[in-house]
Amino acid sequence: MPENLSLPDPRRRGFRARSPVDEVVAWIDRRVETLGPQDLSLGDAAGRVLAAGIRAAEPVPPFDRAAMDGFALRGEETFGADAYTPALFRVIGQSRPGRRFGGNVGPGEAVEIATGAPLPASADTVVPVEICKVQGDLVRVVEATPPGRHVSRRGEDIEVGALVLEQRRILRPQDLGALSALGMSVVAVIRRPEVTILVTGDELLPAGTPARGDQIADMNSVMVQALVRRDGGLPRVLGPMADDRERLEEALANAAGSADAVLISGGSSTGPEDHAPGVVASLGTLDVHGVALRPASPTGLGFARGVPVVLLPGHPVSCLCAYDLFAGRIIRKLGGRSVDWPYRAIERSLARKLASSLGRLDYVRVRVVGEKVEPMAIGGASILSSTTRADGFVLVPTDLEGYPAGATVTVWLYDL
Amino acid sequence: MPENLSLPDPRRRGFRARSPVDEVVAWIDRRVETLGPQDLSLGDAAGRVLAAGIRAAEPVPPFDRAAMDGFALRGEETFGADAYTPALFRVIGQSRPGRRFGGNVGPGEAVEIATGAPLPASADTVVPVEICKVQGDLVRVVEATPPGRHVSRRGEDIEVGALVLEQRRILRPQDLGALSALGMSVVAVIRRPEVTILVTGDELLPAGTPARGDQIADMNSVMVQALVRRDGGLPRVLGPMADDRERLEEALANAAGSADAVLISGGSSTGPEDHAPGVVASLGTLDVHGVALRPASPTGLGFARGVPVVLLPGHPVSCLCAYDLFAGRIIRKLGGRSVDWPYRAIERSLARKLASSLGRLDYVRVRVVGEKVEPMAIGGASILSSTTRADGFVLVPTDLEGYPAGATVTVWLYDL
Repeated sequence: MPENLSLPDPRRRGFRARSPVDEVVAWIDRRVETLGPQDLSLGDAAGRVLAAGIRAAEPVPPFDRAAMDGFALRGEETFGADAYTPALFRVIGQSRPGRRFGGNVGPGEAVEIATGAPLPASADTVVPVEICKVQGDLVRVVEATPPGRHVSRRGEDIEVGALVLEQRRILRPQDLGALSALGMSVVAVIRRPEVTILVTGDELLPAGTPARGDQIADMNSVMVQALVRRDGGLPRVLGPMADDRERLEEALANAAGSADAVLISGGSSTGPEDHAPGVVASLGTLDVHGVALRPASPTGLGFARGVPVVLLPGHPVSCLCAYDLFAGRIIRKLGGRSVDWPYRAIERSLARKLASSLGRLDYVRVRVVGEKVEPMAIGGASILSSTTRADGFVLVPTDLEGYPAGATVTVWLYDL
Repeated sequence: MPENLSLPDPRRRGFRARSPVDEVVAWIDRRVETLGPQDLSLGDAAGRVLAAGIRAAEPVPPFDRAAMDGFALRGEETFGADAYTPALFRVIGQSRPGRRFGGNVGPGEAVEIATGAPLPASADTVVPVEICKVQGDLVRVVEATPPGRHVSRRGEDIEVGALVLEQRRILRPQDLGALSALGMSVVAVIRRPEVTILVTGDELLPAGTPARGDQIADMNSVMVQALVRRDGGLPRVLGPMADDRERLEEALANAAGSADAVLISGGSSTGPEDHAPGVVASLGTLDVHGVALRPASPTGLGFARGVPVVLLPGHPVSCLCAYDLFAGRIIRKLGGRSVDWPYRAIERSLARKLASSLGRLDYVRVRVVGEKVEPMAIGGASILSSTTRADGFVLVPTDLEGYPAGATVTVWLYDL
């Protein structure tokens, strides 16, 4: 049974009721499931989400090795050595990284060894070159160096069986180095969500086209595409297409068959040209339509043929707001990432009063000027330049009528 | 003339003097130049660095348009209207997004208009549908709506000639929307630096290969590759190759001819198998060799055939440290990005004493545990797992012998 948090009354224009943002967020967290794994080569895995914890199948390092340049020998034989009574050894060979000294190190014998080289058999310490005096094939050690000193033991870095990386970790560059050391050339990560972005609007020309007559370029596809990528998704843009119910239904049915989520930009409200809500309902369930959120109240959420769908308002600022509040959370959840914003939060005091209305969440673009934050004079949801001039946004909660000047607020910064 | 900040004395093993980190950083800032521009389609430009400021060649919006759903008419005719004496208009047509009402709006006439639709000729205001009563083709307006109300004026969002985005801005998703609205389908961004990563070491197997005999998998290529990508570069890995001077010289000459920077991992110190320093000197200048930095003192910097080269120590932790301090800065500068770290900084107090040595900068891996930061017990530069277990690092400046327990230090977090 669909959970209808809020649907418009078909008898009248506009929304009967608007769902509170926190209920919509809870709906997302309850209904959207993280995708399964795929194998990736290490070179492609940075920034991806680990599908399962990694335990070491191999020890690192795989053999005892020198941690310094010097001489490998039996440490006991240096006891009592000092500058006046050095311990004397005969150098019988070399151990280099990748080319171990093959023989045994007997009493009174030493092997020249480079950092990282395997420790030869029967040697148990490395005397650093700095406390040796070398003459021909003789080496004098002027300081006691007990067994084990300057030796990096097999498994010292990573023991067999150790949990090296936890499930759901975002793989860092150095994690790939550790996986390589464990002999792993591929790693299982959560699959990237494939996200189809359907753009509708009779007035829209392809993105980047100069305005012509009454038509303007689609702005949302390039913006949403970049947001989806930032959140770990693989976007595919379809459109702009005309506001035509049959074509939209066909496009959504196709998209739902091949994508992990569908975002529809435009036609999301309750007017006669707003076909997206009905199309979602006919292919599945429209669980939310109308949200107590400014400037993105004509937002919808549901499922079409089992795939989550978000209806994003066509106005660019509303579209960004609805993406930030809902669509991004879905993409991140699908991809196994933290549902929290990737935006950095800072605290600042308001340079002037910020008015809002009770009963809805306000998404307010702001500028950060020194230690103060200034709400931007906003001309409406169509003022895209407000989001390029803004440094970030402030949310005014549903139960507040705004904030007075001087109040400390959290600013979410657009620059990550 | 090369600026030799520090070169090893050829007569003895080890470095004669080590360059202070801040001098090396200043050398980078002085000697590395940002690359030129390339054109990119909007869909590929998110996160890239704008090559030149963007001024608007077109106004946004390109025509006056409705900011609300309602009726377009002459606002003056609504003056004095209220619920008892509504102003009466005859609806003569519709204006929809992309399909303007073609006629003129005369006295006593109104055009039904949707948000975003062009305002018809001679109309100057939009009366929201909420304050209208519609009966057949008649509409009664119950509130005065002065000219200009609910109209989004041509150029209101972005005026022709306005500076929309500044040079060197990292393009945000919403910036791409604004560029699209300006009719731009391509944008000039700074070219991504092409970075060749040469990995050398007789002991190295390809990354991800299980250890075999005395040989171990190369770890640095996958790590450095991911770091270069994170900093906006396009990495290409060559190797692992044997420690062979002639082959390395040939590889570096080729790389310098086709890349914007070269990073050589391994063979960076002063031992007999450390060919990288000599090879750089023979193909250009080795300007720095040996840095007062732990755990990455065997780091080198120079130019080969005009291209910056960094010699990274082969030990993974030292390699990461040298990348963080120097190579990353070069990649970011080449790509026109801020030279500062992408790492987030937090302040925490030390859970215990952190010892260091005067005269060198220490790069100390730490864990953040609640409000405290714990220096990790480090077994040496080869302990790669210390960087996967660490949450970030603390730098101990050259002129300090460490920090006492309880001191507040800056932690640079590995997770961005």
